Amino acid sequence: MENKTAAKAILYDTTLRDGMQGENIFFSPEDKLKIAMRLDESGIHYIEGGWPGSNPGAQAFFELAREVEFKQARITAFGSTRRQGRTCEEDANLKALIDSGAPAVTIFGKTWDLHVESIMSNTLEENLAMIRESVAFLLDQGREVIYDAEHFYDGYKANKDYALATLEAAVEGGTGCLVLCDTNGGCLPCDIDTITRETIAHFGERDDLIFGIHTHNDCAMAVANAVNAVHAGATMVQGTINGYGERCGNADLTAIIPILSQKMNRDCISPENLAKLQNLSRFVSETANVPPVSSRPFVGQSAFAHKGGVHVSAIMKNPKAYEHMAPELVGNQRRVLVSEQSGKSNIIYKAKELGVDLGDDEARKAMIVSNIKELENDGFEFDAAEGSLKLIMEKLTEQYKSRFDLESFRVVVEKDKERPCYSHAMIKIRVGDKAEITSAEGDGPVSALDNALRKALSAMYPSVNDMQLVDFKVRVIDGSDGTDSKVRVLIESRDTENVFSTVGVSEDIIEASWQALADSFQYKLSLDTDNADQ
Amino acid sequence: MENKTAAKAILYDTTLRDGMQGENIFFSPEDKLKIAMRLDESGIHYIEGGWPGSNPGAQAFFELAREVEFKQARITAFGSTRRQGRTCEEDANLKALIDSGAPAVTIFGKTWDLHVESIMSNTLEENLAMIRESVAFLLDQGREVIYDAEHFYDGYKANKDYALATLEAAVEGGTGCLVLCDTNGGCLPCDIDTITRETIAHFGERDDLIFGIHTHNDCAMAVANAVNAVHAGATMVQGTINGYGERCGNADLTAIIPILSQKMNRDCISPENLAKLQNLSRFVSETANVPPVSSRPFVGQSAFAHKGGVHVSAIMKNPKAYEHMAPELVGNQRRVLVSEQSGKSNIIYKAKELGVDLGDDEARKAMIVSNIKELENDGFEFDAAEGSLKLIMEKLTEQYKSRFDLESFRVVVEKDKERPCYSHAMIKIRVGDKAEITSAEGDGPVSALDNALRKALSAMYPSVNDMQLVDFKVRVIDGSDGTDSKVRVLIESRDTENVFSTVGVSEDIIEASWQALADSFQYKLSLDTDNADQ
Repeated sequence: MENKTAAKAILYDTTLRDGMQGENIFFSPEDKLKIAMRLDESGIHYIEGGWPGSNPGAQAFFELAREVEFKQARITAFGSTRRQGRTCEEDANLKALIDSGAPAVTIFGKTWDLHVESIMSNTLEENLAMIRESVAFLLDQGREVIYDAEHFYDGYKANKDYALATLEAAVEGGTGCLVLCDTNGGCLPCDIDTITRETIAHFGERDDLIFGIHTHNDCAMAVANAVNAVHAGATMVQGTINGYGERCGNADLTAIIPILSQKMNRDCISPENLAKLQNLSRFVSETANVPPVSSRPFVGQSAFAHKGGVHVSAIMKNPKAYEHMAPELVGNQRRVLVSEQSGKSNIIYKAKELGVDLGDDEARKAMIVSNIKELENDGFEFDAAEGSLKLIMEKLTEQYKSRFDLESFRVVVEKDKERPCYSHAMIKIRVGDKAEITSAEGDGPVSALDNALRKALSAMYPSVNDMQLVDFKVRVIDGSDGTDSKVRVLIESRDTENVFSTVGVSEDIIEASWQALADSFQYKLSLDTDNADQ
Repeated sequence: MENKTAAKAILYDTTLRDGMQGENIFFSPEDKLKIAMRLDESGIHYIEGGWPGSNPGAQAFFELAREVEFKQARITAFGSTRRQGRTCEEDANLKALIDSGAPAVTIFGKTWDLHVESIMSNTLEENLAMIRESVAFLLDQGREVIYDAEHFYDGYKANKDYALATLEAAVEGGTGCLVLCDTNGGCLPCDIDTITRETIAHFGERDDLIFGIHTHNDCAMAVANAVNAVHAGATMVQGTINGYGERCGNADLTAIIPILSQKMNRDCISPENLAKLQNLSRFVSETANVPPVSSRPFVGQSAFAHKGGVHVSAIMKNPKAYEHMAPELVGNQRRVLVSEQSGKSNIIYKAKELGVDLGDDEARKAMIVSNIKELENDGFEFDAAEGSLKLIMEKLTEQYKSRFDLESFRVVVEKDKERPCYSHAMIKIRVGDKAEITSAEGDGPVSALDNALRKALSAMYPSVNDMQLVDFKVRVIDGSDGTDSKVRVLIESRDTENVFSTVGVSEDIIEASWQALADSFQYKLSLDTDNADQ
């Protein structure tokens, strides 16, 4: 339904400004520089670095960025139009934009008459002058100027003529780029479609103008709205990596980029850069220290994961059966989940994926499958614990190499009235013919065990210090009889490159935690060996 | 842009079937029943309970559901059309649908010629017969039949005439409800719009037919696509609570419901039920033991959260400045991240509900509210732990009567190579001026503590033996740093008459478990006193 000539789309990233408005998102100026360089390498065209007039962190980023030669991206500084009743020359905000040294500047102005009059206590005329003069002033200072029309769609619905007049003021000021913003994220795709078309048509004779779109996810429609605006004629798309941003977030570039490139035939990214998209997403979540969302479209760990037996056997005949695109295009991969609903084909597929050779003997394969099924009946859940699944497959095919063996441990938790718990652990392990005994404290028994095991292993295997626990989940498997029933512990860990999960099951929460913890260390150490073999 | 007559929309929930295809989403048959009852209370029209032909867990749910009188919702069982080359009467899958006892049945059939021929190795004719005959057979058995056209949009793009012929076959079989599925989640809103319109127009003369939409989120567009289909004439929307589902998830009903009701003027939910939407979302994520996503549109904790500065002062003048709708409509609330706003009225309401008299002094009420808010900020979650909430309200109003006091405990967990863990606990408590010291073993440290405490209390309070733990859940509150971060333990207990839940929070899992465990005993004993008073 799209035409076949590859029209251009311009990618504008605001992770470092609007993304940082997200509730738990924080980047230091150095983090921001690392991300900016990665965005530049990934082929993003504009990188909005921050609002230098609003905080010292943003200024520090621009100072760092001035020292860097970017390959192709332009850095932009963000700010507002001049204040009312003041000249551009005496406006501190505009001065900070100039001082940032950024080659491009994005300024936002008011579109919505409600905002201008009832919130800013301004006149409609003065607002137009603020827009026109601020754009002209920044152009005079030799900057490229992008104009963000705040609340454009809400303003257009309330007072169409005034909304268009604000854009005209920006064009009179001299900008060549008008960005239409759904600031509150409340618009539906049909509104975006109609209003964008009408607005572009209004400037019909000016085919040198570029239109952009800036959307928020308050109705779970940021991506759809951005894509609809492109469909209606917009060229520039503003968004953030992983959709980070205030409230429900901004339009997620990790979804928009593959849609523009693969489904709308827009020229915006090279295939090589597209294939780095999952890495880019991980890098940004890693830098923000926020766990990656596994269901995230295109780049999430579950985005191409299949659970149902019906789906899996169909996929093996033809991936198009249950995949809308090839995962490799965005650097992702197909995963087959092993769960209670799954059959033999899932497990054989999974072994291949994890690099475990099950051999050719059919009887032996059947034995392996039935062993894994039995563990699942006992409460293990391998679709969320591929680390443990790999270790078990290796054990069942005698390919397992244990990196350490437990001799014993003892964990003590003590509590006195009015004092918090105190936990400590002693552990004895064997590595080859050498025994290690260590003990450690912790914020709880599992933490104490983790610390003691890490201490015991770190002399032999210093790489364990690169690893950390990311998540720890416990659930009672059979909800019927409380503390006496079986418990499943899932642990997610990461090192500098990988995220992996392991599982333990027992009636005893400490035993289950130990299994998952020990697996996480065994798995981490097996990765190191795999890398050393290469 | 919508007309003002409130057309009806039908809400169809598939959390219990398609939602459970999500990685990490698992519900026991008992969990499923609890969720179904909650969906019924929330005004959802259809509740798809599972695929009885595919796994024993789904069958168990339908057995439980048969014993329950639902207020208004219809339970549906899900399955496929009959197998090729077999009669309906001899088809085990169709038999399981009938045996489920569900009043409505949803069956899916193949739309896409690629699927029929290359994956199912079937003929196009036999596929049409399978659809027609299966629908007719189920109608003959007195069930309402909803027909899900799998891969409808992909099939339509590949071979429009055949795709429409599959729908015609279902209509010939006698169904009155055709659901168009974007099974792979790869369609863009413009495709959905065009194809839905054309399809409904194709059946133009049949104005008794109802059209439905089933979308997936692989392009971050499940909600937009569902809404677009409604815009194009669909009446039924299939989705899941929180968007749980395979790969990137299904259309999220917690976003679709407020959009239909508040932005498209569709008659689908009462204002009272809409105001329970955040609670419903929390309840389902709690039951799945999956942390609620704070940026989730409408119901997430951050959905109406404003970081300081420009937005906050504008919001104080006029909330429309940066909010697309009033958060209270969906039971959410505005949060101003600089100065925590509290839901005072919620807490006062809750106290009344729990039978705790907060008194009339406004300053004192404000103190109570701020104390509870502070605990919530520390990680306590009282939505799912009303037992603990009641005890805390009693403590803050000096109405609390402690039934026992802890002096100290000590828990030891020991493990030797090749032997399972061994856990034992010693506890010293005081009841009035009498001290009790007991010790006990258990299947894990919490079980050992539970047994020791029960032993210590049972001499004084024999009714503790009527109480047992039903469920025990643990969650890391801040997912960022593994075993060192805070943990929340939720315990559900029951005696012969009541089910109640309690909560504990600590960096130490044993400390958190102790708090929840001690609260469960205190609460149980307070119930006994309340009863004795009557």
